[in-house]
Amino acid sequence: MNTQPHGHIVRSLDEEQRRLTAELLRMGEMAAAQLEAALDVVERRDDKAAERVIGNDEALDALEREISQDVMKLALRGPLARDLREILAALRIAADIERIGDYAANVAKRSLALNLSPPLPLTRGLSALGALAVRQLRDVFAAYRDSDAAAAQRVRAGDAELDAQYTGLFRELLTYMMEDARSITPCTHLLFMAKNIERIGDHATNIAENVWFLVHGEDDLPPRDKRDETNTAT
Amino acid sequence: MNTQPHGHIVRSLDEEQRRLTAELLRMGEMAAAQLEAALDVVERRDDKAAERVIGNDEALDALEREISQDVMKLALRGPLARDLREILAALRIAADIERIGDYAANVAKRSLALNLSPPLPLTRGLSALGALAVRQLRDVFAAYRDSDAAAAQRVRAGDAELDAQYTGLFRELLTYMMEDARSITPCTHLLFMAKNIERIGDHATNIAENVWFLVHGEDDLPPRDKRDETNTAT
Repeated sequence: MNTQPHGHIVRSLDEEQRRLTAELLRMGEMAAAQLEAALDVVERRDDKAAERVIGNDEALDALEREISQDVMKLALRGPLARDLREILAALRIAADIERIGDYAANVAKRSLALNLSPPLPLTRGLSALGALAVRQLRDVFAAYRDSDAAAAQRVRAGDAELDAQYTGLFRELLTYMMEDARSITPCTHLLFMAKNIERIGDHATNIAENVWFLVHGEDDLPPRDKRDETNTAT
Repeated sequence: MNTQPHGHIVRSLDEEQRRLTAELLRMGEMAAAQLEAALDVVERRDDKAAERVIGNDEALDALEREISQDVMKLALRGPLARDLREILAALRIAADIERIGDYAANVAKRSLALNLSPPLPLTRGLSALGALAVRQLRDVFAAYRDSDAAAAQRVRAGDAELDAQYTGLFRELLTYMMEDARSITPCTHLLFMAKNIERIGDHATNIAENVWFLVHGEDDLPPRDKRDETNTAT
């Protein structure tokens, strides 16, 4: 793929890029684990563990800064057009993972507030939604690892299911709030937590689109179903 | 600042960077105008205008893609360390502005749902919050234009005021919902609209931090007050 004359430089750039991919995958797995941990603390109502999840987010932020620097240093070595695509994709994917980490930490943070009210049955719906998001994340990181555009496309298509579940949960929460005014504050936290998970799904979709872009360049992506319908819920 | 031996190459790189700054400022002003337009359609309950704001977001998305490409092409020309900082900052700022545009479009989108219910007095609070965010945006873009780290630092400090207003509005909305169950659906939209504006403030802060980073490099930023307290509201 790489046609530069000096074998040793090419090999070294390749090595750098493999290292970058490995770093991104490590960062991705950290974000997925953070989301799992956040969902777990919601269910177990464990404030100590929630604080740990919140604190761990800093490691992800630091990793993103490191990766951005590495990517730019790679760019400075004068890469070819195909590398430019990888560099752009790596920067975008790192930023998406960083946001995923923020949303996961916010789920943990809101669990602290939730734990001050009696348990709500609707946290079950949140767990199911979250489990789906975790699966989307693991699938998209595997697609990135394998440069598998078809797998990325399946993740992208899978976001519709996550949106549908989110919309269902959103409606259930509104109904619950209308029936019992005392549930409004905790349900509002659950609304935002569900929204965070829906946004994590959007970032998984972004990553899937970047994997597509890596494999196929600027070719148009196939169309897909559109998203969160709760923006216009009445 | 630039010590490359070939005057014409240096000048041309400088020109490219000036063009890039101008493009980013244009993109920033578009995002600020989108937010203003979104706030305006909320107040006037104007569905047609809301659709226009939603549609305009595509132009911002396209501009971000263009700028990212330009930035990477610039990186390929083999910039020096100081340029590397500018390139990284430009990529981050473009991504922040793109997100600001998304949030503004989402405010417009939710106004469509809001217009299906009778007007709520609390949209006044949303306007005030939004006006503050618009000011933060204009101030941070001016700081970027002038490479003014002190002005950027003021924007960053100003985010605490925005967070305080957001927290106040959030509490008012919850109270309103508890008093009148019929207001729960429209108030939920207002909650998310207010959250969008609070997030826009966070992105203005990110941009301010990038301006600081441009001027001072990796030097530590002075500490600041922390943010959205509604994550733990009870």
